[in-house]
Amino acid sequence: MSADNNEQAREQLIDLAAQFYDQFELGEIPHMSVPTRTKNNIEYDEDSDVWVYGDRESTRSANSVRGARKLLKAVYTIDFLADQLEEDRSSTLRELYYLSESWDNEEAQFSDQDESNSLIEDLEIVSGVTREDFHMRPEESGATIMGPLHLREQTRRGEREIHCQEDVGEGGYQIPNNPDTIEFLDCEADFILAVETGGMRDRLVENGFDEEYNALIVHLKGQPARATRRITKRLRDELSLPVTVFTDGDPWSYRIYGSVAYGSIKSAHLSEYLATPQAQFIGVQPADIVEYDLPTDPLSDSDKNALESELSDPRFQTDYWEEQIELQLEIEKKSEQQSLASHGLDFVTETYLPERLSEMGVL
Amino acid sequence: MSADNNEQAREQLIDLAAQFYDQFELGEIPHMSVPTRTKNNIEYDEDSDVWVYGDRESTRSANSVRGARKLLKAVYTIDFLADQLEEDRSSTLRELYYLSESWDNEEAQFSDQDESNSLIEDLEIVSGVTREDFHMRPEESGATIMGPLHLREQTRRGEREIHCQEDVGEGGYQIPNNPDTIEFLDCEADFILAVETGGMRDRLVENGFDEEYNALIVHLKGQPARATRRITKRLRDELSLPVTVFTDGDPWSYRIYGSVAYGSIKSAHLSEYLATPQAQFIGVQPADIVEYDLPTDPLSDSDKNALESELSDPRFQTDYWEEQIELQLEIEKKSEQQSLASHGLDFVTETYLPERLSEMGVL
Repeated sequence: MSADNNEQAREQLIDLAAQFYDQFELGEIPHMSVPTRTKNNIEYDEDSDVWVYGDRESTRSANSVRGARKLLKAVYTIDFLADQLEEDRSSTLRELYYLSESWDNEEAQFSDQDESNSLIEDLEIVSGVTREDFHMRPEESGATIMGPLHLREQTRRGEREIHCQEDVGEGGYQIPNNPDTIEFLDCEADFILAVETGGMRDRLVENGFDEEYNALIVHLKGQPARATRRITKRLRDELSLPVTVFTDGDPWSYRIYGSVAYGSIKSAHLSEYLATPQAQFIGVQPADIVEYDLPTDPLSDSDKNALESELSDPRFQTDYWEEQIELQLEIEKKSEQQSLASHGLDFVTETYLPERLSEMGVL
Repeated sequence: MSADNNEQAREQLIDLAAQFYDQFELGEIPHMSVPTRTKNNIEYDEDSDVWVYGDRESTRSANSVRGARKLLKAVYTIDFLADQLEEDRSSTLRELYYLSESWDNEEAQFSDQDESNSLIEDLEIVSGVTREDFHMRPEESGATIMGPLHLREQTRRGEREIHCQEDVGEGGYQIPNNPDTIEFLDCEADFILAVETGGMRDRLVENGFDEEYNALIVHLKGQPARATRRITKRLRDELSLPVTVFTDGDPWSYRIYGSVAYGSIKSAHLSEYLATPQAQFIGVQPADIVEYDLPTDPLSDSDKNALESELSDPRFQTDYWEEQIELQLEIEKKSEQQSLASHGLDFVTETYLPERLSEMGVL
């Protein structure tokens, strides 16, 4: 991370605190407005092709003790973040919560971690600086890349040049918490295949799918971390690589696809930074369950509710998703990606993926 | 993986199936005996310093339809594994479950994944071959190493030489599913620090703890995968490195320590392969909660039950653990490792760990 970036993020934070002084001078009660973060307040942005917050706002104001305490906590947090940036250090969301216990003003201490997490989100939205640029790390990132990509990562210990096939073990290249420390040097991949489960990721690597099809295999590891979504977006934008997402065939996995492609409600303020609207869903599609006669489990009540809720989610209101979701509600079945193994261990790499990639126009 | 290893594992599996033929010839009903896998049937092995199964056995016999079906499934699985080894391929436990749907005999198909998982464990125990040597992969491994270790990994794509500080990004070196493919070339570490949470692992790496103290930081990632436990044991045995385990201060985390040090009930047959009886617990100890005045959460009822159950667990019947667990039941509090941040972000690396490592005689 460059000192320039740190300084810029620091200034934007301090500007935020300075607003409170301006409000005092104008005789106003100090306050801060943030967009309401609910499904009803996200809308499609035609320019950037992603979902963003609408116009509804909630206001934190010092006109109540509760509101004043919220602003006090915001100011203490801004102070901590500004120091952290000045020292070029970083911390986790959980450390921030515990660290608040050392603050001199007890009223400024967080009562639980939900409160500090949500304050950091507010600060991201209002300042326009991402958590990564505040140097706040998540608890876990842990996802990996395998494929023909040569990159340079700027670490605290100097630069590292790594080829994501030749310089890594079978486990692949570990994506750092802040992938904006990475520069892409050279890439021979034709497309990205983002994969939900570790078992499938290992299958593709064992079968040499990345070598045979010039694919970058990105392991999503369930609901993907921000770092994984960010590097996927950068690979798409900077290297013009098509992005395909391969998950289990159930409503929870469609949400994984949704968070890669459209962003999430919780972080709609970051859609332009994290979402890859060009990402295409490979499967497992409900249509595949029928076509390939896959082993299935019955839909549970919560599966059905989740599918119904997706039908009313603006991110899934396309003909494609309506058709697939309605088919799934009709057959009342779901299948995991590894169920493709019922046709043999090579079926996924020799038949299923090539067929789907051709249909989608990627191959 | 060498062809020799594959051939040896294959032969041991086939010997197992051959037993059934021998039993037929002797006029016996085919059967297979496996140790009973419960807490009452694990005992301390003085020679190897780990907990192993006792003498109680349960028998799978073809004298009932249910028993005969179990043996049929075992034979089909042995056949699959023998083919897999011959072709030098591998698969996941979940793939095995799905793959059984393609077997010609419907009676041999698994009805759920618990059944196939538990059969693989039976085969490990009876054959004396580990799952890794059967080439069965887990769903996830995902843990990492950072520190002054230079190693060579044998991958399907050839050998990779990797230094776990100089050749990796901030994410560290990703441990492969089968760490027996690794050869240690050179190691300048003085000890291993195995760490439960990602947040703490990142803190130690950011603070340069591995460089300043010549430590190998192994991320356990919660309950450690077999690959993580196996590489920890090999580092201890082959490089004579002291192993220290750093977790949250609650009963679930003591079990994480227990699984590194003594093995687990479910895999007591693998203790000699996976357990590191020399591993020492650094903390967070209940005594630390008091001494360092850490932020705490109250013990829940299930925490208390888990502590009580540890008091009767043979693995925890030492003066040290009895004292710590009784203290915790008395104060009725628990603390996370990141709560050390309440004394500042450097407290863990500048004060807490050096103090504890000195007390333990590691530094």
